[in-house]
Amino acid sequence: MVLARVVGTVVSTSKVPQLEGIRFLLVERLDAATMNGTGDHVVAMDSVGAGPGEVVFYVAGSSSRLTPVTEGRPADATITAIVDEVEMNGSTVYRKDVS
Amino acid sequence: MVLARVVGTVVSTSKVPQLEGIRFLLVERLDAATMNGTGDHVVAMDSVGAGPGEVVFYVAGSSSRLTPVTEGRPADATITAIVDEVEMNGSTVYRKDVS
Amino acid sequence: MVLARVVGTVVSTSKVPQLEGIRFLLVERLDAATMNGTGDHVVAMDSVGAGPGEVVFYVAGSSSRLTPVTEGRPADATITAIVDEVEMNGSTVYRKDVS
Amino acid sequence: MVLARVVGTVVSTSKVPQLEGIRFLLVERLDAATMNGTGDHVVAMDSVGAGPGEVVFYVAGSSSRLTPVTEGRPADATITAIVDEVEMNGSTVYRKDVS
Amino acid sequence: MVLARVVGTVVSTSKVPQLEGIRFLLVERLDAATMNGTGDHVVAMDSVGAGPGEVVFYVAGSSSRLTPVTEGRPADATITAIVDEVEMNGSTVYRKDVS
Repeated sequence: MVLARVVGTVVSTSKVPQLEGIRFLLVERLDAATMNGTGDHVVAMDSVGAGPGEVVFYVAGSSSRLTPVTEGRPADATITAIVDEVEMNGSTVYRKDVS
Repeated sequence: MVLARVVGTVVSTSKVPQLEGIRFLLVERLDAATMNGTGDHVVAMDSVGAGPGEVVFYVAGSSSRLTPVTEGRPADATITAIVDEVEMNGSTVYRKDVS
Repeated sequence: MVLARVVGTVVSTSKVPQLEGIRFLLVERLDAATMNGTGDHVVAMDSVGAGPGEVVFYVAGSSSRLTPVTEGRPADATITAIVDEVEMNGSTVYRKDVS
Repeated sequence: MVLARVVGTVVSTSKVPQLEGIRFLLVERLDAATMNGTGDHVVAMDSVGAGPGEVVFYVAGSSSRLTPVTEGRPADATITAIVDEVEMNGSTVYRKDVS
Repeated sequence: MVLARVVGTVVSTSKVPQLEGIRFLLVERLDAATMNGTGDHVVAMDSVGAGPGEVVFYVAGSSSRLTPVTEGRPADATITAIVDEVEMNGSTVYRKDVS
């Protein structure tokens, strides 16, 4: 899975039927060492109610269809978790409440 | 999913039978921060009637077979939505009518 | 799918049984803007009778098994079409007969 | 599969139900020639009880669901082995006990 | 599929049960134009009895489970062929016996 930050939304009215009712979030991949954005953006389906600015991870590939929200839909990236804390080499590099 | 712009078409007469009747569009990936093209092009199947110059997103991998148009076909990239608006960090970075 | 040019062949006698009878072509990815090679090569299964120098596109991932030639075989790249013409931004950047 | 080192953990309470009970490890890809980190990090599911600092390999894509721990879960990277030794060009470039 | 050279082995005793009995080879991707190594290494399952120094190709993704050796196992890269010869633009760039 990939660490990313929710930075925006994507709106579409002309789309395949299986995308009806899905919320599309624009996420930016993060460099885990610094928790800064990398400039790489992906359009991900939201399955956890993630909000702007939140750090999440998303799952890519066929597994992005394995959530209650995305089952049977043409997904290749789905946010499956809002991240509370990232610990690296014994240090807390991210904590939700204080960042 | 990946933000891209429809920049052209690809025509083929010698192809596997499952590709008959499919429209192949050449799309260029976009840098979401600027909405400029990145120079990376992909041949995508069209499932939403996208036209030249339109901003879309496409789905990659096995999910590109999960649309009414592409079911059972050898696809790895399918346009599943025409994008109306992209919002990033509280600003509208793309809106279909005014761009 | 990915635009590429057939640049060679790969021959193997020691291989898994499911690869018997398959023709392996060496293809070089193309930069669609210039139709020049990028230096990136892939070994692709041929399902359309592509010949040396021809511009094709290949499908990657699980869909590369969805052709009459490659069904049930361990493929991750299969040539599914010989390209006749590529049009970009209103110009013909490639046409088979004249290139 | 990809050689990596376990460098941290990722904690999440808001997540899809299928992620309950899974341990998320932050791993850094290794350059096999030097066994140094590359700076590329992935969030992987743990299926072997890997600990901090250990060299492992993980499997990506749909196969990351094919372990007793990850079956049916939305995974795209699962640690499937703790590495004891890496030999390259006749030399031992990594051995667990002495590194 | 990807051209690569077998450059080493990876040994693991702590692994998921489905990896028992599998031989893990370290392979280095090759630049097809020069047949030199690129410095990118992958841990691949061996299904053809490949030996050190041999040029092979491996299949990535879900197809890496479609060999007699790897069926049902968590694989994302499996060596499916030992390469005898690579021909590019009319020249033999690699032949097993003489290289």
